[in-house]
Amino acid sequence: MATTTKQVLIAIIGAGGVGKCFLSQLTILAARRPTPKLNLCYISTSKKALFDQDYSAIGIENALQELAASSKAPMLLPQVADYLAAAPSKVVLVDNTSSQDVADAYPLFLSRGISIVTPNKKAFSGSYKLWQDIFTASSTSGAKVYHESSVGAGLPVISTLKDLVETGDEVTKIEGVFSGTMSFLFNSFAPVEGAGGQWSAEVKKAKGLGYTEPDPRDDLNGLDVARKLTILARLAGLPVESPTSFPVQSLIPKELETVASGDEFLEKLPAFDSQMEETKVAAEKQGKVVRFVGSIDVAAKSVKVGLEMFDRSHPIAALKGSDNIISFYTKRYGGNPLIIQGAGAGGEVTAMGVTSDLIKVLSQIV
Amino acid sequence: MATTTKQVLIAIIGAGGVGKCFLSQLTILAARRPTPKLNLCYISTSKKALFDQDYSAIGIENALQELAASSKAPMLLPQVADYLAAAPSKVVLVDNTSSQDVADAYPLFLSRGISIVTPNKKAFSGSYKLWQDIFTASSTSGAKVYHESSVGAGLPVISTLKDLVETGDEVTKIEGVFSGTMSFLFNSFAPVEGAGGQWSAEVKKAKGLGYTEPDPRDDLNGLDVARKLTILARLAGLPVESPTSFPVQSLIPKELETVASGDEFLEKLPAFDSQMEETKVAAEKQGKVVRFVGSIDVAAKSVKVGLEMFDRSHPIAALKGSDNIISFYTKRYGGNPLIIQGAGAGGEVTAMGVTSDLIKVLSQIV
Repeated sequence: MATTTKQVLIAIIGAGGVGKCFLSQLTILAARRPTPKLNLCYISTSKKALFDQDYSAIGIENALQELAASSKAPMLLPQVADYLAAAPSKVVLVDNTSSQDVADAYPLFLSRGISIVTPNKKAFSGSYKLWQDIFTASSTSGAKVYHESSVGAGLPVISTLKDLVETGDEVTKIEGVFSGTMSFLFNSFAPVEGAGGQWSAEVKKAKGLGYTEPDPRDDLNGLDVARKLTILARLAGLPVESPTSFPVQSLIPKELETVASGDEFLEKLPAFDSQMEETKVAAEKQGKVVRFVGSIDVAAKSVKVGLEMFDRSHPIAALKGSDNIISFYTKRYGGNPLIIQGAGAGGEVTAMGVTSDLIKVLSQIV
Repeated sequence: MATTTKQVLIAIIGAGGVGKCFLSQLTILAARRPTPKLNLCYISTSKKALFDQDYSAIGIENALQELAASSKAPMLLPQVADYLAAAPSKVVLVDNTSSQDVADAYPLFLSRGISIVTPNKKAFSGSYKLWQDIFTASSTSGAKVYHESSVGAGLPVISTLKDLVETGDEVTKIEGVFSGTMSFLFNSFAPVEGAGGQWSAEVKKAKGLGYTEPDPRDDLNGLDVARKLTILARLAGLPVESPTSFPVQSLIPKELETVASGDEFLEKLPAFDSQMEETKVAAEKQGKVVRFVGSIDVAAKSVKVGLEMFDRSHPIAALKGSDNIISFYTKRYGGNPLIIQGAGAGGEVTAMGVTSDLIKVLSQIV
């Protein structure tokens, strides 16, 4: 079947950290796959775009330089949909942004036959209606939508959960550390061996190493983890309404929620170290360590995100660096869960999830 | 595209432990997927077969009972290929045997457009020529071949390695415990905490629990692990000639290689316990534990299988029960590997790998 399709057109929105890594992976992929030819027909940032009305191919290797030199503004999203729907070949849209606006347009793109691969969590962890609209549009038009990197970056988390569900296993519980930032913070603050540092000092160190968002509160509020749990819970069959519709423990002291900047937050955080220290000591008294985890109890239909205590020998306690760990408890796997572990953030591994999704889509549409 | 294809025909060879579990998963899958309809057109054991020359559908739910009552002998493999190649729809052959004969016929099936899904290790760990013939036939005809369950049963091992390679990552090393039997034996014989049992007693216990082959030497010779390593090494780009073309440590004492039966072997094994005990004590003196692992050093092009020592805090040491663990070290993942862990044997989880492969093939051929 592949021989009947001469090219597949790729359109990319977003050229930040993940977008740059994706472009370099796409360069390798395109060089390795003579048929169908992968041709880039659109690439945009929030400020600029590169495209040609007759869909002529943009050189993938030099796309970023050409984009920087382009004087074209990005099209509005409905225009992008018109442009791609009228293309002479099948099209895959790669959304490398974390934009809610782009996510909101997925049903439009899909309904017009444009497949999507993306690490954008917003599309799958926003309102349940958007989730339904996306998958209804996909199944009606036959256009594909894959989002492996929306949870655990390149780790095979979503594909594994889908395989379990589609082959008829009964997923009973999903539990894990879903944030590289939280992983790093707790592995340093409450290590399995040794004393660990002061909470505020660890947060400062993590920010210095580039492991947190510019304002660390964007990690400490737990919303990023809540979004990932929303996605997994929905795939496991729970119609979770939104990432704020279940208990999420924020690690931002109430008094610091409204301070003006991340820097001011970091300055004032040491005054609240005793709260986290108490939690750590309480765990130690039981021979345990504290970790920031998300869990889904499928039977009880409950999802929660927050601090939990684990035995020192538990795989969640033994995690290293900024690794993620995800445990799937199922009927078939019994007492010992299926576990996936490794880096769950970073440009290259996130782009890997996007590229492998693209390969899956290509195998299905050509 | 799905709507243009009315049915896909499924042919099954093998109705043992995995075959039975696969049939029950296929029942669920067929019920959930109205289009294309999945119709069973052939099922056989080594003694019997069930089929109709006009390909009329066999009821999946009652296939085993009907097969038991059938008076038809199985077709010869070239006949099966003729029968399936002449079918009025696309066909997927599910090989649930561990037969070398069936494996040897894969190039024939694939060249005639018949896709294959299977847990059969023999096809992918036999001669390198067979490996090449299989994938050449597949790429020439467009028929698909998937074998997730040939390593780690339902664990996403092969799909993950393929994703890493296809997206351009550089796999530097693969290491792990690839045998549920070996995992159970060493987790009991040399646990991280406590003294552990006598070697021969643990082997006897494992056999009593059904965790070994009828003759435990078929596990202890290391060949099963060597086959899995052969498959992964080839996927990582090493043209390994066969599972006997690299060092494989056998745990069968030389003197017991030729005793007549598994029972006699178990009877005489206690006389050799001191050898394994020495290995255990040597590890303990370094604060380590001994494990039976396979490893692939891609840069050095070396593959080996045998006993190795690990720190008590190493994920391989901390394994539980009869779990497998597979660590992928790659350029992108850096110092902390991507780890997959969980049950790597058992009918249901092995069948899960086969069923999820079938779903992948269906998404590509219809």
